[in-house]
Amino acid sequence: MKHDIRTEHDSLGPMDLPRTCLWGINTQRAIENFPISGMPLSHFPEFVRALASVKKAAARVNADLRVLSPQKARVIEEVCDEIIAGCWHDEFRVDMIQGGAGTSTNMNMNEVIANLGLIKSGHQPGDYAHLHPNDDVNRSQSTNDVYPTAMRLAIVSQCEAFSAAQMRLAEAFRDRAAAFCDIRKIGRTQLQDAVPMTLGQEFTGFAVTIHEDVEIIGRLKHLLLEVNLGGTAIGTQVNTPDGYAEAVVAELSRLTGLPVKLAGDLIEASSDTGAYVTFSSVLKRIAVKLSKICNDLRLLSSGPRSGFNEIGLPPVQAGSSIMPGKVNPVIPEVVNQVAFQVIGNDLTVTMAAEAGQLQLNAFEPVIILNILQSMRILGNAMDTLATKCVQGIQADAALCEDMLENSLVLATMLVPYLGYSVAAEVAKMALVEQGSVREAAVKLGIGTQDEIDAMLA
Amino acid sequence: MKHDIRTEHDSLGPMDLPRTCLWGINTQRAIENFPISGMPLSHFPEFVRALASVKKAAARVNADLRVLSPQKARVIEEVCDEIIAGCWHDEFRVDMIQGGAGTSTNMNMNEVIANLGLIKSGHQPGDYAHLHPNDDVNRSQSTNDVYPTAMRLAIVSQCEAFSAAQMRLAEAFRDRAAAFCDIRKIGRTQLQDAVPMTLGQEFTGFAVTIHEDVEIIGRLKHLLLEVNLGGTAIGTQVNTPDGYAEAVVAELSRLTGLPVKLAGDLIEASSDTGAYVTFSSVLKRIAVKLSKICNDLRLLSSGPRSGFNEIGLPPVQAGSSIMPGKVNPVIPEVVNQVAFQVIGNDLTVTMAAEAGQLQLNAFEPVIILNILQSMRILGNAMDTLATKCVQGIQADAALCEDMLENSLVLATMLVPYLGYSVAAEVAKMALVEQGSVREAAVKLGIGTQDEIDAMLA
Amino acid sequence: MKHDIRTEHDSLGPMDLPRTCLWGINTQRAIENFPISGMPLSHFPEFVRALASVKKAAARVNADLRVLSPQKARVIEEVCDEIIAGCWHDEFRVDMIQGGAGTSTNMNMNEVIANLGLIKSGHQPGDYAHLHPNDDVNRSQSTNDVYPTAMRLAIVSQCEAFSAAQMRLAEAFRDRAAAFCDIRKIGRTQLQDAVPMTLGQEFTGFAVTIHEDVEIIGRLKHLLLEVNLGGTAIGTQVNTPDGYAEAVVAELSRLTGLPVKLAGDLIEASSDTGAYVTFSSVLKRIAVKLSKICNDLRLLSSGPRSGFNEIGLPPVQAGSSIMPGKVNPVIPEVVNQVAFQVIGNDLTVTMAAEAGQLQLNAFEPVIILNILQSMRILGNAMDTLATKCVQGIQADAALCEDMLENSLVLATMLVPYLGYSVAAEVAKMALVEQGSVREAAVKLGIGTQDEIDAMLA
Amino acid sequence: MKHDIRTEHDSLGPMDLPRTCLWGINTQRAIENFPISGMPLSHFPEFVRALASVKKAAARVNADLRVLSPQKARVIEEVCDEIIAGCWHDEFRVDMIQGGAGTSTNMNMNEVIANLGLIKSGHQPGDYAHLHPNDDVNRSQSTNDVYPTAMRLAIVSQCEAFSAAQMRLAEAFRDRAAAFCDIRKIGRTQLQDAVPMTLGQEFTGFAVTIHEDVEIIGRLKHLLLEVNLGGTAIGTQVNTPDGYAEAVVAELSRLTGLPVKLAGDLIEASSDTGAYVTFSSVLKRIAVKLSKICNDLRLLSSGPRSGFNEIGLPPVQAGSSIMPGKVNPVIPEVVNQVAFQVIGNDLTVTMAAEAGQLQLNAFEPVIILNILQSMRILGNAMDTLATKCVQGIQADAALCEDMLENSLVLATMLVPYLGYSVAAEVAKMALVEQGSVREAAVKLGIGTQDEIDAMLA
Repeated sequence: MKHDIRTEHDSLGPMDLPRTCLWGINTQRAIENFPISGMPLSHFPEFVRALASVKKAAARVNADLRVLSPQKARVIEEVCDEIIAGCWHDEFRVDMIQGGAGTSTNMNMNEVIANLGLIKSGHQPGDYAHLHPNDDVNRSQSTNDVYPTAMRLAIVSQCEAFSAAQMRLAEAFRDRAAAFCDIRKIGRTQLQDAVPMTLGQEFTGFAVTIHEDVEIIGRLKHLLLEVNLGGTAIGTQVNTPDGYAEAVVAELSRLTGLPVKLAGDLIEASSDTGAYVTFSSVLKRIAVKLSKICNDLRLLSSGPRSGFNEIGLPPVQAGSSIMPGKVNPVIPEVVNQVAFQVIGNDLTVTMAAEAGQLQLNAFEPVIILNILQSMRILGNAMDTLATKCVQGIQADAALCEDMLENSLVLATMLVPYLGYSVAAEVAKMALVEQGSVREAAVKLGIGTQDEIDAMLA
Repeated sequence: MKHDIRTEHDSLGPMDLPRTCLWGINTQRAIENFPISGMPLSHFPEFVRALASVKKAAARVNADLRVLSPQKARVIEEVCDEIIAGCWHDEFRVDMIQGGAGTSTNMNMNEVIANLGLIKSGHQPGDYAHLHPNDDVNRSQSTNDVYPTAMRLAIVSQCEAFSAAQMRLAEAFRDRAAAFCDIRKIGRTQLQDAVPMTLGQEFTGFAVTIHEDVEIIGRLKHLLLEVNLGGTAIGTQVNTPDGYAEAVVAELSRLTGLPVKLAGDLIEASSDTGAYVTFSSVLKRIAVKLSKICNDLRLLSSGPRSGFNEIGLPPVQAGSSIMPGKVNPVIPEVVNQVAFQVIGNDLTVTMAAEAGQLQLNAFEPVIILNILQSMRILGNAMDTLATKCVQGIQADAALCEDMLENSLVLATMLVPYLGYSVAAEVAKMALVEQGSVREAAVKLGIGTQDEIDAMLA
Repeated sequence: MKHDIRTEHDSLGPMDLPRTCLWGINTQRAIENFPISGMPLSHFPEFVRALASVKKAAARVNADLRVLSPQKARVIEEVCDEIIAGCWHDEFRVDMIQGGAGTSTNMNMNEVIANLGLIKSGHQPGDYAHLHPNDDVNRSQSTNDVYPTAMRLAIVSQCEAFSAAQMRLAEAFRDRAAAFCDIRKIGRTQLQDAVPMTLGQEFTGFAVTIHEDVEIIGRLKHLLLEVNLGGTAIGTQVNTPDGYAEAVVAELSRLTGLPVKLAGDLIEASSDTGAYVTFSSVLKRIAVKLSKICNDLRLLSSGPRSGFNEIGLPPVQAGSSIMPGKVNPVIPEVVNQVAFQVIGNDLTVTMAAEAGQLQLNAFEPVIILNILQSMRILGNAMDTLATKCVQGIQADAALCEDMLENSLVLATMLVPYLGYSVAAEVAKMALVEQGSVREAAVKLGIGTQDEIDAMLA
Repeated sequence: MKHDIRTEHDSLGPMDLPRTCLWGINTQRAIENFPISGMPLSHFPEFVRALASVKKAAARVNADLRVLSPQKARVIEEVCDEIIAGCWHDEFRVDMIQGGAGTSTNMNMNEVIANLGLIKSGHQPGDYAHLHPNDDVNRSQSTNDVYPTAMRLAIVSQCEAFSAAQMRLAEAFRDRAAAFCDIRKIGRTQLQDAVPMTLGQEFTGFAVTIHEDVEIIGRLKHLLLEVNLGGTAIGTQVNTPDGYAEAVVAELSRLTGLPVKLAGDLIEASSDTGAYVTFSSVLKRIAVKLSKICNDLRLLSSGPRSGFNEIGLPPVQAGSSIMPGKVNPVIPEVVNQVAFQVIGNDLTVTMAAEAGQLQLNAFEPVIILNILQSMRILGNAMDTLATKCVQGIQADAALCEDMLENSLVLATMLVPYLGYSVAAEVAKMALVEQGSVREAAVKLGIGTQDEIDAMLA
């Protein structure tokens, strides 16, 4: 059995690992130290890929600046490509919620790269004299610059898919708006009948409000892509060769095809988490809007007999285990819940950001977890809403029209002719007599039927 | 003019004050240091009174334990009585949001007591040799024990009125429940028609849920009344005579008529803010319930034509500047907003509690501000809701009955007889044919009219 | 291939399922409808077990009350026992975040029980004529009573382990407190040197504050165990036989050994989520305390040269990928992050609770997800903190003593002898002359060395 | 006495008012309906001014479009100018927390303008036949467009002063950074000694992070200035003359000198509160940064003996009522508390935004209250921090240098020469032997003193 084991050392002492284990002592200690959420790094492949991209860029620039041999750089780059391609995600096992400001994530990556590189170049895992996790793979780097850079890349890498979901949802609403453009109905303020509008206008409003955040997400990419890479431990660029920071950022930009930029003040950038607060706030804003829209959809489809009944959501499952025939607005309901989760996650991000101290924010792991999770569930929620609900919404045009005609809202349209006080009397009489505004206006002697109709045209 | 001025000194140097000014140099510096919210201590007289009670108890015990002359103690006590009676509230001018863990509040009190005492005993304000803010008034005390003790007393002093408002609101709902006990209506889950209930049951539910928190408030009083008084700076009782802590707590209990208790571990009690977190959470719980109830009231009264229309809220003002005759649910709406404020305030309390460090939480001022403000607006909101809204709610019994009879909810009651699947078919047919469940059941040949009626009885 | 398929129907139409699939059409639709978080019901086995317990109790009582055949009841009970034993957890695949107020969770359970029961009694899965998910398994039940009852049982089922973690952590602190009871040190308020205390007192405070919440968790169990079981859809007990509610609650109590009680007002209990708000608030309170303690541990161990250095946390991993020899407080850091997550989760619970409408809160799924997740990570965090950190904390007694003697804090102890103003002068001189309070007092001629020593004893 | 009274009517009936009262029945009812916070509209004069500006623009355009007589328009404009000039702020007495979506605020303005206009044109207050609050002053308007437009203007009107405070604070930090540019010190990550930096770099970071939000505030002005004015009740422009919306927005832009723009979709804009969520999030972001900075200032100035002691904050008041000579970081502490309040207020805004329904968000009053309050206290806090604290910060350069030289952080700088593992051994030996990195490196035989010095240069 002994030959199945290799022994690694760190400043705490030795540790046995399976001989072929792709991670090393730092990763193993972290796995044991953080048995918290059960959600490993591999749960967010976009984050693993982003970190591997940073490693690849660093290796190439280290070679260019002659602080790493071309052979080592080449093998590191090859391994990173495999990781980016998704071949080794299962090797990233440290819990997403971890202490140490991401050092364990960084070391998990450094060790897996080193061991894969060792194997690729004919050595044994753990034989770090030939390729060292810290001295080679992590060369010119600190967790404190590579981890937040990977956070930012990971977020940005999800933006396109996220915005596509935004646009699909907006499009679904716009499609329904077109279908509903001639359906006149009561507009409501404060849940009380107000003035006429069309159902098409209402749905266009949903489309517009969802769509306008696409651009906001787009603009935030640039804020996020200002990185502190090359600043190393605290932004002073300790242990980097001359010109490294500019070169590695340029390389990263080339590799990813994204406009990555070096932050103006690397000290500030090392501890600043403002961009995450801002991005999370935008996710919150989107969640707030989605929740409001889903509340509206549930209201407008309330019934089927004793509610607003203006629209019908497509049934996607039986609604009740006890009430046969009941169909519930389950899709908007799940979106509401996603929104509540995103809003809670935003608070977690806020608290973690506020808790940063001096030259570093040690709480970045819980920040990236919450942002990536919020993006994922919000993206899923938008797609689900579009495909399982919005696209199939039907309107009850006749009922909308009836309720409008039967309503008191038309009194408002008399104001320019009669003034507020007289119009109020008309409305009051119609309410009391359970009749229409037209009838009440005529009965009060305000005008002939034709005259009143003209005012209400 | 010179004789209108007196000069006081502290470790920062001298400062001129108006000769008759009742506060001193510490207060004046604090007024200048904290121009933040514009909301002075006097905005919360309950807090001023609570702190004066602590001072009074301390003076008496200091005299008993012979660390303060009986003459000085007597004059301090007299002044405290005047402050408690409300005579001097305007002298408490430091901003509620202040740094220093409440020291400026404590010194404002110490200085006003000293100067009023000096005047009362024939001396000039500022002539502290005869009655010193720190050495006499603050004797055996630290801000770090008197301030939190006053916080706790202030909160508890408002509990009775608060619970009275809870009970009045519960009573208002119960009264309406009695009036509505025979009105049958549709119960709704997920905004969809569900099964029959009475409007009385619905309103009883509101009463019950509000009322059950009266007891919770009552229980929290005991948690709050565990004080660290006598612990002084950090709970080690430095600068107190033997037996002081027990004696002053007993005296405070006697003075206030409240079961004040000395905390078991004074070190822990000095920095712990758990009781505030708990109390604020209960305010949040009440706010959540009130908001839910007000959402329901607004839903149930939606209309007047195109909504649920089951109840009518009493109109209390014209609803719109442009739409004549519109009446809006303005009272529930204001309660919703109060709830949102209380929930936000709870977060402020949470963050302030989390930020405490080592032997003290320096952020208690923003904690007490938010708790007292939440209690006040929540109490006002409950009274407003009871008197301006709930008491005048009317039901539309005929419409409730019609909607029930017309609904599909009766299909559920067929399940025990027909099974879920057959009952679902009945419901579906009724929906499609826009008829009643009775009609559909007969049409499907499930039974005779009489048999079906029996199942639905 | 055709014979590998079975076809089920619901009101939306037919659906093909693998012939041996243990769930049915309702579950399958829900899996497809809610591709949200990727976290299935099986992620929380305690919740699956709790729901199975409810089903078992219902079956037994249904048989007793003769609305279910003894044979069917027996097979349901047997299957429930297997589920409770953990044999079938993988069959619970619906996403934890789901619309429909938990109906899909309930139906997942109903269908798995029915199919397992069918197999057990020699029938084919899907052959529901012999054992029906709704008519038999869900007999006398609605999602709206069984789901929240299962939520409550699931939470309570975790309380014992949770409190054990609380107690272990408190014990770890108390053990260190005993070891540190003679180490004198500076107490600090507002991060500034204050007055003397012992390190043992400080750690006792941590133990006390953690421990006092054990009792609070204990008390909440009773609040949580008031269930609306038997109320069915909205609390009116529709479709239950006489006496069912009382009987099923008694049976559930017997089965689980927990003091389950029937709620006083079933209508109110059906929509009320106050107990979850309260429980989540307590988790938040615990999180706030833990975060404060971990902040303190990180402060007290700051250094190793340029910080407070009073204590040393046991190193558990290398601290940095770039800075050799650095050891970081990774365990307190991970606990801080857990605290932030729990506080964010509490907001999600709050928003979901507030959003309930009329006779039901449709957002219970996100509530139970957040509470169970918070309990789990908080429990893990407390155990990790106890075993990986607190138990190994060492103190630097000599440095603590030196810093105390060297400090200005002793000036406070002169106040009873010299008054506040003179003591302040002593402190100021000691600060300016960079000497000790003793020296300054002598130099200012306040007393002899012996006299001063006596005052400071 | 009868002649001191006038009687007004609304749809609820008659009400007596003092004859000369400048507000009318709607205002009076609202004052009575909303006894909530005790904070009247006049507490935020910027909001009163903004609303008066909207009224003035509307009057002018109404006259231009011939739906209001030039005489009436002129008198309305004159009155608005007086209100904008601050002459009548005391007349705005409705509580800031009000139901009705702001209708009572709008009516308070309409009635005060009408009555002041009546007096100005020789009529009696209440003689609305000559100038009507609704028909004339509110002509072509609805609360639902004028109130949010005024909200936006009010926020924007405070942005300049707010940004000036941001810039003054950044400038204060930059000034100190310049003074501290040569002071070398230990940079810290995770509260542990890390690598060298200068105090100037640290303070520059504070300046940079504060300053970069000036631009963000600037950009948000444009988002905020997209108004729904002219959309009236729900965005359909009911009761406005042709061309009104474009004209009134242009007029408002001219009057205020701000780039006010008409929203692209007036329906969407009527209910959308996204801009408030975004603006409040930015205030939260600023609060988070300020809180982090103040935490740092308190840490760096901890002491005076047993802390970090790198900097000294200027004393602004005696720190303690019991501990003579104690000086506390009271200014950073008050800023922390303001930050917690702003973060809590942001949650209130979030919840209010989420609660909007259908064509309107009825909870705008609590949104504007919280945003204006947050801006005010945050602006005050930044100015207080700059003038009472940052400007007077002094550094202890000698101690900073000593701690750096004495630290282990230099081991990091050996890594490029020795590799991570060897450097770690050096650091460990230095720690164990309580010596310096230089000494340990020489002792371990890694190089001569000169060689080591060269590596550490």
